[in-house]
Amino acid sequence: MRMNDLIEKKRDGGELTGDEIRWMIEGYTRGDIPDYQMSAMCMAIYFRDMSDRETYDLTMAMLDSGDRVDLSGVTGVKADKHSTGGVGDKTSLLLCPMVAACGVKMAKLSGRGLGHTGGTIDKLESFEGFSTAMSMETFLRSVNENGFAIAGQTGQLVPADKKLYALRDVTATVASRPLIVSSIMSKKLAAGADVIVLDVKTGSGAFMETEEAAFGLARSMTDVGARAGKKVIAVVTDMDEPLGNAVGNALEVKEALAALKGRYAGDLMELCLTLGSQILLAGGIAPDEESARAMLRATIDDGSALERFRRFVAAQGGDPAAVDDESLLPKAPVVMEAVSRRAGYVKRMDAHGVGVVSMHLGGGRVWKEDSVDLAVGVVLHKKVGDHVEVGESLGTIHAQTEETAGEAVMLLRGCYELTPEKTERAPFIKGIVR
Amino acid sequence: MRMNDLIEKKRDGGELTGDEIRWMIEGYTRGDIPDYQMSAMCMAIYFRDMSDRETYDLTMAMLDSGDRVDLSGVTGVKADKHSTGGVGDKTSLLLCPMVAACGVKMAKLSGRGLGHTGGTIDKLESFEGFSTAMSMETFLRSVNENGFAIAGQTGQLVPADKKLYALRDVTATVASRPLIVSSIMSKKLAAGADVIVLDVKTGSGAFMETEEAAFGLARSMTDVGARAGKKVIAVVTDMDEPLGNAVGNALEVKEALAALKGRYAGDLMELCLTLGSQILLAGGIAPDEESARAMLRATIDDGSALERFRRFVAAQGGDPAAVDDESLLPKAPVVMEAVSRRAGYVKRMDAHGVGVVSMHLGGGRVWKEDSVDLAVGVVLHKKVGDHVEVGESLGTIHAQTEETAGEAVMLLRGCYELTPEKTERAPFIKGIVR
Repeated sequence: MRMNDLIEKKRDGGELTGDEIRWMIEGYTRGDIPDYQMSAMCMAIYFRDMSDRETYDLTMAMLDSGDRVDLSGVTGVKADKHSTGGVGDKTSLLLCPMVAACGVKMAKLSGRGLGHTGGTIDKLESFEGFSTAMSMETFLRSVNENGFAIAGQTGQLVPADKKLYALRDVTATVASRPLIVSSIMSKKLAAGADVIVLDVKTGSGAFMETEEAAFGLARSMTDVGARAGKKVIAVVTDMDEPLGNAVGNALEVKEALAALKGRYAGDLMELCLTLGSQILLAGGIAPDEESARAMLRATIDDGSALERFRRFVAAQGGDPAAVDDESLLPKAPVVMEAVSRRAGYVKRMDAHGVGVVSMHLGGGRVWKEDSVDLAVGVVLHKKVGDHVEVGESLGTIHAQTEETAGEAVMLLRGCYELTPEKTERAPFIKGIVR
Repeated sequence: MRMNDLIEKKRDGGELTGDEIRWMIEGYTRGDIPDYQMSAMCMAIYFRDMSDRETYDLTMAMLDSGDRVDLSGVTGVKADKHSTGGVGDKTSLLLCPMVAACGVKMAKLSGRGLGHTGGTIDKLESFEGFSTAMSMETFLRSVNENGFAIAGQTGQLVPADKKLYALRDVTATVASRPLIVSSIMSKKLAAGADVIVLDVKTGSGAFMETEEAAFGLARSMTDVGARAGKKVIAVVTDMDEPLGNAVGNALEVKEALAALKGRYAGDLMELCLTLGSQILLAGGIAPDEESARAMLRATIDDGSALERFRRFVAAQGGDPAAVDDESLLPKAPVVMEAVSRRAGYVKRMDAHGVGVVSMHLGGGRVWKEDSVDLAVGVVLHKKVGDHVEVGESLGTIHAQTEETAGEAVMLLRGCYELTPEKTERAPFIKGIVR
C-alpha cells in the first residue's frame, strides 16, 4: 500500500477499505506516514466526505491506536456524556451528580481544553485543593463508591487522535464531519461506557452553525456507536445563546451549585433532565421518559444530587465547605453592571461574542500553556425573549481591573440585538437522534 | 498572516491575494511554512482551482524564489520550447537545429526526468562523450556560435518548484491546473527566452487525457505568459499514439537523425514544422506560416539543420562521427519482431502501454538514482489507420535478453486494437492557443 495512492483514491471520490484506513492510521501513529501526506488526506476527506462504513472503520482504527479504560470492575450501568462544546456549558457539574444519585455510574475523563472558558477540570479547580490526578485504581474505586469521578485524560487513550487533531488544527481540516465523528467517538469508546449521551450544539455559539449540520453529526455519531455495539443517543440543542446565565469558571460552578440547591430552572436544568432521562432509559433504570425526569428532579428536591457532589469534591481533594458556602470560591475584585442604553426585547444574542467577553477578561485559554483566571466572567441577566429597559443591566461583569471590566461592558452590549416587538425563544431541545 | 487562515480561505473558495501568495511561497521556500500545511493548501487548490490572476501571482512568486538565466548577451531572437511530456517525444533533437538554422537562438535547459524513457539529456548521451555540464559562460557562447545548446538544469532556478513538486508528487496533488501551470511557466520564465512555444499533449499517452483539459492548460499557460510580457504560443497535439515510431533513448536519436537527413515525414516532422513556424512568426523572422514552414523545410533539404546538430554534438564533447554513422550509437544485443497474430486496421493504440514496454526493457527511470539503458526500446511499424496482416510485424523490440524481448512482444501486442473496418487517424494538431 502507498499513502499517495490512498490520497488519490479519496481525492477522486473513492471509498477507502477498512484495511486501507487501518494501515493509514497505524502508519501515521507510528510515524511511518508523514504529516504532509496525512494533511493532504484530511483535506481530501474534507471535500469528499466519508461513508458511514468508512467513518466507523476510521473510528475503530483510531480507538485501537491506544489503550481502553477497563470498566469491568465498576458495577451497574456505566454511562458517559460528551458535548460538542458551547459557551457557558457546565452540564457535567450538574448531570453527573443527578444521574449518580439515580444509581448510574459515570467514570468521566475530561480535559482542560482551549476556548472561551477553561474545561471542566479548570472549573472544578475553583475548589481549593481539587485534583484530577489519580491512579486508575483510585478513579474506579471512587466511581463505585460515589457514583461518579472525573479524571484528566491520559496520553495512552487514542494517541492517533492526539496527533491527528494537532495536525488538523493547523491545516484548516477541523471542520470535517467524519474527522469530527471519529475523533469524538474513538475517545468515547476508549472510555469504556455502555451508554453514551451526546449533546450536539447548534447555532451561533456552536461548532455546527446550522441545524442540518448538527443533525448530520448526531446521526453519524449514533451510527458509529450502534456499529460498535453501544447505546448512543444524541440530543441536538440550541446554542444561539449561552447555556444558563454564567460564563466563566467559578461563576459557572456557582450556577451549577445553585441548580443543585434547587434555585435554578432554566435551559441548563432542562438539558440535564433531557440528557439524564436518555441515560436512565437506555440503562433500563426508568421505564419511560416521564418517570425518568421525575427521578432526576427528585435528586434535586431531596438534596441527594448535592450530597453526591459534595462527596465527589471531597473525594478528589477539594474543600467541600465551598459547596455550601459559595463565598469560599474564587472572587474577582471588580464587579460592574453592563447597563443597557436602549430598550426593547432581546431578539438575538451572539453566543460566540459572550464567549469572547469571557476570553477578554482572562477566563479562557488560547494556548495549552496559558493559565486560566478562575474568578472572572459574566453573569447574564437577559436572554432571548426578555424585555430590557434603558438603564437595566444586561449582565454583571466580574473582572480583575476597572479597565478590562469597562471594555467587557462594551463588548457585552454588542452581543445583544434588541427590537421593539415582543420576541420568542426558539425551542431549546431541537431533537433526539437514537 | 497565518498559513492556516490562507488554507481555510482557499478551502472555502476564496481568492488569495498576490501578497498572500508571495508570503506563502517565500515562507515555504525558506522552510518557515511546513510541508504539512503546504500539502493541505495544494489539495484545497486541487478542489477549488485558482483564478488567472492567482495563477499568475503564484508563477511569479515561484519565479522570484531563485535566479534567472541572463540571456542579454545572446544576440537575436531567443526562443524556448516546452513539452508536457509524451511517449517517444524527441522533438527537441529535431526542432532546435531546424530553428537554429533559421537564425533563432535556443538556450535550452533540460532534465533527465522520470518516465518511460530518459529525458533529452539521457538521449543525447547516446553520443559517446556528450555532456551538459558546462559553465553558464560556455553555455551562452555555444548558443551564440551554434544557435543552440542544451544544459542541465541548475539548482538555483525556481527552488520553490523543486521543493513543491517533490511534495505534490507524494500527496496526490500533481494534477492541478494552476499548480502545473505555475511549475512549468516559472521555470520557462526563469530560462529567459522571449518566445516560448508549448507543446501540450492530449490523449491516452498524455498527462491531460481530454482535449478540454489540454486546451484549458494551454489557455492558462499563454495567459500567464502574456501577463509576464512574453510571447507564448501553445500547440495542442495528439498523444493517443506515440510520437514518431521510436520509443527508447538511442532509437529516438536515430529517428531524429533520420528526420534531419530527410528520411522521415511523419507526425514528428509535422510537430516540428508547427512549433518551429510559431517561433519564426512570433520572432518576426517569417512573415506568415507558409513561408515559415518553407524556411524550416529548407533546413532539412539543404542539410543546414543536420550541420547545426553535428556542430552541437561536437561542441558539447560528443562524437560527431556518430551523427553520420549511426552504427556508432548504442545497440541492443537482442532484436525481435513483435509479429501480429491477428489481421485488421489499427483502430486505437495504447500510447501509455508502449511507454510501459520501453520501461520494461530498462529504457526508463522510476527513481532519480536509476540508470537508464540507452540501447533498448521499440520501433513501431504500425500506427493508427495502418493495415496489419497476420504474421506482419507491429514493431521491433530492442532488448538486452531474449526473455525481456519475449515479454515485451506480448506487452506490445496488447497495445494494439485492431478492427476489420478501415480506420482513420484523428487530426494530429488539435489547435493553437496564442
